[in-house]
Amino acid sequence: MAEILQELNFIIQDKNRVITEKIEDKYLSDTLGRLKGTALAVVLPVSTKEVSGIMKWAYDREVQVTPRGAGTNLVGSTVPDQGGIVLDLTLMNHILELDFETFTATVEPGVILQDFQAYVEEKGLFYPPDPGEKLATIGGNISTNAGGMRAVKYGVTRDYVMGLEAVLPDGKVIEAGSKNIKDSSGLSLKNLLIGSEGTLAVITKCILKLVPKPETSVSAVVPFDSLGAGIESVLHIIKESTNPTAIEFVEKKVIKLGEDFLHIQFPYPEAKAYLILTFDGREEEVLANVQRAKNVVLETNALDFIKLEDKKLLEDVWKLRGALVKAVEAVSEQEPVDIVVPINRTAEFIGFINELEKESGMQMVSFGHAGDGNVHLCVIRGNRSQAEWEAEKSKNMSAIYHKAYKLGGLTSGEHGIGLSKKEYFLKETDALNLELMRSIKGAFDEKRILNSHKAYNI
Amino acid sequence: MAEILQELNFIIQDKNRVITEKIEDKYLSDTLGRLKGTALAVVLPVSTKEVSGIMKWAYDREVQVTPRGAGTNLVGSTVPDQGGIVLDLTLMNHILELDFETFTATVEPGVILQDFQAYVEEKGLFYPPDPGEKLATIGGNISTNAGGMRAVKYGVTRDYVMGLEAVLPDGKVIEAGSKNIKDSSGLSLKNLLIGSEGTLAVITKCILKLVPKPETSVSAVVPFDSLGAGIESVLHIIKESTNPTAIEFVEKKVIKLGEDFLHIQFPYPEAKAYLILTFDGREEEVLANVQRAKNVVLETNALDFIKLEDKKLLEDVWKLRGALVKAVEAVSEQEPVDIVVPINRTAEFIGFINELEKESGMQMVSFGHAGDGNVHLCVIRGNRSQAEWEAEKSKNMSAIYHKAYKLGGLTSGEHGIGLSKKEYFLKETDALNLELMRSIKGAFDEKRILNSHKAYNI
Repeated sequence: MAEILQELNFIIQDKNRVITEKIEDKYLSDTLGRLKGTALAVVLPVSTKEVSGIMKWAYDREVQVTPRGAGTNLVGSTVPDQGGIVLDLTLMNHILELDFETFTATVEPGVILQDFQAYVEEKGLFYPPDPGEKLATIGGNISTNAGGMRAVKYGVTRDYVMGLEAVLPDGKVIEAGSKNIKDSSGLSLKNLLIGSEGTLAVITKCILKLVPKPETSVSAVVPFDSLGAGIESVLHIIKESTNPTAIEFVEKKVIKLGEDFLHIQFPYPEAKAYLILTFDGREEEVLANVQRAKNVVLETNALDFIKLEDKKLLEDVWKLRGALVKAVEAVSEQEPVDIVVPINRTAEFIGFINELEKESGMQMVSFGHAGDGNVHLCVIRGNRSQAEWEAEKSKNMSAIYHKAYKLGGLTSGEHGIGLSKKEYFLKETDALNLELMRSIKGAFDEKRILNSHKAYNI
Repeated sequence: MAEILQELNFIIQDKNRVITEKIEDKYLSDTLGRLKGTALAVVLPVSTKEVSGIMKWAYDREVQVTPRGAGTNLVGSTVPDQGGIVLDLTLMNHILELDFETFTATVEPGVILQDFQAYVEEKGLFYPPDPGEKLATIGGNISTNAGGMRAVKYGVTRDYVMGLEAVLPDGKVIEAGSKNIKDSSGLSLKNLLIGSEGTLAVITKCILKLVPKPETSVSAVVPFDSLGAGIESVLHIIKESTNPTAIEFVEKKVIKLGEDFLHIQFPYPEAKAYLILTFDGREEEVLANVQRAKNVVLETNALDFIKLEDKKLLEDVWKLRGALVKAVEAVSEQEPVDIVVPINRTAEFIGFINELEKESGMQMVSFGHAGDGNVHLCVIRGNRSQAEWEAEKSKNMSAIYHKAYKLGGLTSGEHGIGLSKKEYFLKETDALNLELMRSIKGAFDEKRILNSHKAYNI
């Protein structure tokens, strides 16, 4: 151990940034804190050169490395399950450039999402990806291809990454992508790194695409007497070119949990399900879109269209939507699921969940992004013993993932696979696809030292 | 030869779809017809099963395979430079499904772009990618990640490919991507296949994203007294959220070629450079955007803003823009270049070209996509002998690509690398990136039988 410390301090000549004793629990887990690994050392580099030095050292000695940002992930991505080195990138948190001529920002991977959003918005620009967890790092967002509510109009993180600098497992530094808008010049290494959950390389610099900041934003709540009716409305809203920024769905039973937790009142309590819509852009355009959306939903099967003009009501609605996971967790431990299905299968999938809930006696709460079929599902422990919980959860989750794939869905829409969803992902994914992913891993990391037992890896 | 024919006819039991004698020249080249390969046979499969059978056969025997669509490429992508089998996918040209609930179409790779666009537009939907060559196949578009004029607003082909079925070099069939809008489930094999120029797998099915058809479209010509002034205007047009569909630039000297070729008159002849703008969407939104764009350009440095309300004038302007390459070719042989640079470097790049033209005495004509820095450049032979042309072209092209990379640019924005741009791409691309691309190639095609000497390959 003394030898390792000495070697690491040769690369990082600041003793405060190499921790080998009394390693805090936060470095050994994710935000849920259920899975826990071990580490020889936690290293906090401040430059690409230092990251490169650490990786070369680790590769030469075949020491496992687990890179991490803020550690806000939900699937064990930052758990050092194979021991070795934890590489914490949160000190690489500088915004290096804001380029008004190419509408790009260049940042280090440890920049916090909400800081970055605030920074660019102050300058009249806008970074659209908006996952629920605002304290995540940009590097983490890229590694999971984070999504969020605004994906309906703006797309996901992948759509805003123009270029990356990354350190390969052996310490070599590559640049993938650039400030160029078009690119038909060889295989897209950039797109391979995005969403690779830190299994191929350590991201050390990010060139991000920005857009002009929208002038205004309007939200509305649309109540329905069934979730199916709401999902059907979604298809009409999209088809009529109303260009919504977000289309969220919540069932009444879930709203109730949030109301009890926050002591606030959601509008139109007699409905069974709701859509929450947002529109942004220039004032006149937004107003026209809202009007058209209102006409569309009322012509189909909505019970009402409640434009959130009252500031307090607007805040309450989004506060409740944002607090749903916490509202669930206040009552019981839960397993978060972020399955994605084709948008027209959302209602059928939720129907299956509701049936399974009845059959299994295990409470399940679902809500999420109706505009893109990304269902957030909390499978709730209740007062089960650890053994009961493990056994029943595994059985029910297997059934849920199997159903999702039968509907043409996928394991994860935005959280990634990590360790927690690996069992289901490996079971449902074609063996040939997994084989290709592992071969590609080998092209980047022959010795398999970087997050090498997560996601698609064995 | 008789033995090969027999074996191929065992896989494809239709003698008309296996050609081994009197192979037409079109199968041995690209649309320019300058590079020419040789082939043992041309095979025209009609199903994934047949493609799989052919690939397995070729892989087992280590026979080289060159897949092709309509052969409209400009960089030798379809030239069977290593001999072997030409796999023509144009008979796999069926639109398999139009799914109004997920806004997707599923098509075979041989479907022709303009047929597909017309088909979906008739149904009120829209496929935004719009490369200049409308007779290309969808499979070819995906293989080069084709761009086109509408990329400013809508993005490129990559942004509209949701899923692919593809046959690996050894004959195995994979599915990459799906009808799901979000995906954080393992490495993105789909994004690796897009733009891979048929070096990794043969695409046999494509799930494409559609959007609602825009209600209306308005174009305008904006004259300037220099190209630099025009490019500066582009940044303001984008920044002011005017949301243009296309921003094309053309210099006066290039317009002149088109006018002489087509015998039509471009508006505002006394200017030195022009932008051609298009806006599409809902009527009121388009009118507001056009008005704002007009204000923006007139406040900066435009000489006028000519809204193309006259139908004849509108047609003439786009006819001229579309005919520029042909106008050049009517005068002389030319080498087409599709370099991309960051949008704010476009004027500097064109300035360099204009200087080089003077210095070298070789005529160069440039125009293209100002909204995304994608410069179409025709390097013109004139009355040079073959030897002079080869030598001078190579020298000038090397200087041009080197300058583009110094400005942060790339070899190709939309045509791909193929054979014709390989020399420049290999010279300017980092060795480490090339090494990774080749390792990835090895993960798909260990025996290196599929387009294995093109693009990033040695």
